Amino acid sequence: MSRKLKNEELHRLSMEEFTQAAKKPIVVVLDNVRSLHNVGSVFRSADAFLIDEILLCGLTGCPPNKEIEKTALGATNTVKWQYFDSTQKAIDYLKSKKIPVYAVEQAENSIPLNKMPFPKACALVFGNEVYGVEQDIVDICDGVIEIPQLGSKHSLNISVSAGIVLWEVLRGDL
Amino acid sequence: MSRKLKNEELHRLSMEEFTQAAKKPIVVVLDNVRSLHNVGSVFRSADAFLIDEILLCGLTGCPPNKEIEKTALGATNTVKWQYFDSTQKAIDYLKSKKIPVYAVEQAENSIPLNKMPFPKACALVFGNEVYGVEQDIVDICDGVIEIPQLGSKHSLNISVSAGIVLWEVLRGDL
Repeated sequence: MSRKLKNEELHRLSMEEFTQAAKKPIVVVLDNVRSLHNVGSVFRSADAFLIDEILLCGLTGCPPNKEIEKTALGATNTVKWQYFDSTQKAIDYLKSKKIPVYAVEQAENSIPLNKMPFPKACALVFGNEVYGVEQDIVDICDGVIEIPQLGSKHSLNISVSAGIVLWEVLRGDL
Repeated sequence: MSRKLKNEELHRLSMEEFTQAAKKPIVVVLDNVRSLHNVGSVFRSADAFLIDEILLCGLTGCPPNKEIEKTALGATNTVKWQYFDSTQKAIDYLKSKKIPVYAVEQAENSIPLNKMPFPKACALVFGNEVYGVEQDIVDICDGVIEIPQLGSKHSLNISVSAGIVLWEVLRGDL
């Protein structure tokens, strides 16, 4: 029998414990993500996987925001974030910290996600719902990671893509 | 340089090709999922990974539905689905076809997702946004799979969970 666990049996971190916990050295960059639901959902996934930081860029919405909260469910209070008025500036910031930056996109010379040799620390750029990661941002990344897809549609939802990529980076370490 | 690919360069399947393509023998069961955005997003992920079928159960919304379409973006026209007025009946249907059924939940004796020896064919049950998979449904499943989580929040968004689990099932095969 598999009795479902109550919330208090999950031994999740308190907000204070989360702040003090050693984070996974992964940065998520949102390049002009339009949907506040997607932003909130990425915060929630970043909380679950103890991600170091989220960089919200360009027209991407920032906390505090009611719509973000609907899917973040409080994760905006735990996960560290910064806003940059352009994604270029966020990438410059990451490069100044010598963090390798990968765009998640469909592009020539992309590496399939399941073949990607992730470095211990890296930043992952996810793009706008319609336009994806802008070409000029792809151009300054250290590489492109692509989620293999077999169906009829162009791409996955961006919060689903972020969840899958974060899982793939960390699955060996969980 | 990594030039972004145009839609026509992705060589996605046409609706007719999708219908005729050999599917991955994976069934997704939605147990009383409330959000139509989540339902649509699961359709889109199921399209991307050529999932065999989605079983929509209880109060889970069904196509055609404008809100589902906002996130499904047409995947309701490609992915096969059935509605069951109770999740119990959906599980009975799967058991009659001898398909092993796993709940994705936080429960005693759960198997961490990254340690799960998936059979070639299986069904995966995802639950309501607040209540998760009902205990009486967990009780009749063949096992429980849990996504390891390190943060402060109870759980991941259900469409993100579904994306991660489908990726983990198929990542060796893509």
